[in-house]
Amino acid sequence: MRFSSCVNRIIPWRSLTTIATCEPSKPEMKTTFPGPKSMALKSEMSKIHQNASTRAFFDYERSFGNYVVDADCNKLLDVYMQISSLPLGYNHPELVDLIKDPRLITSLVSRPALGSFPRTDFADMIKSSLISVAPKGLSEVQTMLCGTSANENALKTAFIYYSAQKRGGKPPTPEDLTSCMKQELPGTPKWTILAFNGAFHGRSLAMLSCTRSKPVHKVDIPAHDWPISPYPRYKYPLDQNVQYNKRQDEDCLANIAEQFRSRREKGQDIAAVIIEPIQSEGGDHHGSPEFFKALQKITKENGAVFIVDEVQTGGGPTGTFWCHEQWGLQTPPDIVVFSKKMITGGYYYASHLKVNEGYRIFNTWMGDPTKLIVLEKVVKVIKEQRLVEQAKIVGGILKTGLEDIKSRNDKILNLRGVGTYVAFDLPTPELRDKFIEEACNSGLHVGGCGDSAIRFRPALVYEKKHAEITLDIINNVMNKF
Amino acid sequence: MRFSSCVNRIIPWRSLTTIATCEPSKPEMKTTFPGPKSMALKSEMSKIHQNASTRAFFDYERSFGNYVVDADCNKLLDVYMQISSLPLGYNHPELVDLIKDPRLITSLVSRPALGSFPRTDFADMIKSSLISVAPKGLSEVQTMLCGTSANENALKTAFIYYSAQKRGGKPPTPEDLTSCMKQELPGTPKWTILAFNGAFHGRSLAMLSCTRSKPVHKVDIPAHDWPISPYPRYKYPLDQNVQYNKRQDEDCLANIAEQFRSRREKGQDIAAVIIEPIQSEGGDHHGSPEFFKALQKITKENGAVFIVDEVQTGGGPTGTFWCHEQWGLQTPPDIVVFSKKMITGGYYYASHLKVNEGYRIFNTWMGDPTKLIVLEKVVKVIKEQRLVEQAKIVGGILKTGLEDIKSRNDKILNLRGVGTYVAFDLPTPELRDKFIEEACNSGLHVGGCGDSAIRFRPALVYEKKHAEITLDIINNVMNKF
Repeated sequence: MRFSSCVNRIIPWRSLTTIATCEPSKPEMKTTFPGPKSMALKSEMSKIHQNASTRAFFDYERSFGNYVVDADCNKLLDVYMQISSLPLGYNHPELVDLIKDPRLITSLVSRPALGSFPRTDFADMIKSSLISVAPKGLSEVQTMLCGTSANENALKTAFIYYSAQKRGGKPPTPEDLTSCMKQELPGTPKWTILAFNGAFHGRSLAMLSCTRSKPVHKVDIPAHDWPISPYPRYKYPLDQNVQYNKRQDEDCLANIAEQFRSRREKGQDIAAVIIEPIQSEGGDHHGSPEFFKALQKITKENGAVFIVDEVQTGGGPTGTFWCHEQWGLQTPPDIVVFSKKMITGGYYYASHLKVNEGYRIFNTWMGDPTKLIVLEKVVKVIKEQRLVEQAKIVGGILKTGLEDIKSRNDKILNLRGVGTYVAFDLPTPELRDKFIEEACNSGLHVGGCGDSAIRFRPALVYEKKHAEITLDIINNVMNKF
Repeated sequence: MRFSSCVNRIIPWRSLTTIATCEPSKPEMKTTFPGPKSMALKSEMSKIHQNASTRAFFDYERSFGNYVVDADCNKLLDVYMQISSLPLGYNHPELVDLIKDPRLITSLVSRPALGSFPRTDFADMIKSSLISVAPKGLSEVQTMLCGTSANENALKTAFIYYSAQKRGGKPPTPEDLTSCMKQELPGTPKWTILAFNGAFHGRSLAMLSCTRSKPVHKVDIPAHDWPISPYPRYKYPLDQNVQYNKRQDEDCLANIAEQFRSRREKGQDIAAVIIEPIQSEGGDHHGSPEFFKALQKITKENGAVFIVDEVQTGGGPTGTFWCHEQWGLQTPPDIVVFSKKMITGGYYYASHLKVNEGYRIFNTWMGDPTKLIVLEKVVKVIKEQRLVEQAKIVGGILKTGLEDIKSRNDKILNLRGVGTYVAFDLPTPELRDKFIEEACNSGLHVGGCGDSAIRFRPALVYEKKHAEITLDIINNVMNKF
């Protein structure tokens, strides 16, 4: 089933060079969202593929810039952007132009097992994409396929490092190698990972053991018995709740120190701390620079690895390329994990964490060169068009506009955000869901997170004019509440 | 660094339509393997990316069909094929032609979050690729990004199903939803997975708890305490060791039944059995159809899920599209996992395993439409050119030729295989490694597995003439041993 006939003027994006000339000027709704054609496609798909989570079907060939077109020819301004994963919106002309890149088709159809047999230009690809935007102080990177596999391998790197430290920096002993095949000490250690209430780090079994955002992720799945500490829960506006919020930081840090102590006492040393700069799926909860600085200090003092999971925050939306740049750390995090807007999964690691033995950090594909070719161009566009700075400015416009709406509507709670990474709460989960429904039906494709939050995740090509349309629609929706 | 100047005649594959006309006619070695340019690239790469497992750098733009060209312009006949992951060899003309497919560039640069917002043609893509080659009796599929994430989600599906059965088929209770956030019973169950000695199912923490092929995968990484049973270890040739091999099956099956009993007694019910039709990374160990039929029966009687991991065997190399077709099962496996030659990761599942609640089997990308576009064409070529039948015939030629060499050289042990999925052992790990080195230096790119096995993993475009060159080189190498 294809639905091409309903769009009279097919967006001629293949021959254009700017977004401005081919992006719709405003949303246009022909049906409710999702519409009848999306629902028919969902029913058809259910016979051959799981689709309990399917919201709507999109016509990607007809989507452009900040606007997505669905199966029913509705044009929505998209501030959710494939769960925050499209950095330049839909069909950006410079990315579409990659069809001419001679490396593309070979990378796709002659896909390397990158861990063993990289392309001759693999180091160049890495340099011009990932290394060119590496967090300050980190100059090495490992590609993976997605955020979850990147987090899994970040944990493995931490376990390998922690075990090696316990051996005085030496490789595994013959006894380690024998006992690990029986999953016994000392080869299979009982080290643990410290994560946080409200965290989301992925949905593999190990990452679910760190994830504590929603029961639907965790129920019925066995887990590692790993420690969990509270993540600060601030009151807003920040400048009116300084003491309360400071106390939040202190209480959380005290709990973390205690977890290190009590787990070590049980022989379950914490090998790494993994944390998001902003808890995203869990409800857009922020931590203060002071909190993160103190957390890094405690982690380091305990000989553990400090892993910052920037899967959702990385790539510019918070107004700096990496959100943790805003903390003012004296030394870089040990590991910074990325995916989503970075097109490929992977992680930067401090040199002392490099794994020296082969086949310990390994799998068949270890990433995908086609994604690096896209990322090279994404990074070029972000730099040339100063899109990180733009996210900071436009995010400010969005937040100021929401403050204005909030001043007239007391159902908007805890307005918060950096860059375009803005969120607010509604009084109940039901009201939040109702808000999303009304906004989508008004042509604004927006997402939720946590129990009752609305989160904004526009692309980096989101401009002032898009923020103004966003605010108009939200104002109208809130007027009904 | 690029090394294009050293190839005098650049293979003009972009304008050709058959492999025969542009594939080299024989290997051609200019240096040892890996050569100095590969080593220089490795040294350069080490500054910015882990590369302890890097063997050599390949010039993929100059590789064609069964032949790979490395950074030093060596042309090797490749019977390893990116760890068994390229079904049609390098730069197959019909795949290169996909550059003209209008779906390709949009799928790449406007990548959907498939679990929530699929393309309008997603069901069509699935039908013409994965469903058109679905194992008999299975008509539903879930895409993922790689074999490991497919296996992780197969386990999650099994845990969800097993828990639901214990609740009489009902969804989680409020108590389940509350307790799982504290990782306590009943919401976080203590169910386990049964896997096998010598198994390989991936390198995430959960899959490593099922994997028992080599210490290097497992050492220093914490694990789930899950049961392990022996996998048959046959003597070859099979027809001269019938009684011994039958006893192997019986002993393994008795152990499996006992594991079900003892784990249930401890409240650690086995929710699923996961097994490879041929243990690949572990050393190319085969099981008999009788063993697998009995294993399915025991699994079913215990209410557990029977997961067949065809990540390495799927897609035709064993002479049937799915290796488990050769067992003569009365009912299909509950889950069949794939990746590698299938271009995308994923798994087929029996209808009763469909997860009805949203966001339980979910992640941001849930697969990649660009890979489905490639797979559509791969499947078309495999069917049109009867490549599965060819694998059976050519594999027979390869095995017969190896039998002949074996008859003159007693260092070739346990020759075994189905289709082109052929292997033999050498007397020691050192001799095996020496064999690989000599073969590569003679222009045959071959891989090992287990302690001392040589495994053949050519593409499906591997023909009689390639088998003959393979045998020539092996004969010469073995003459030196």
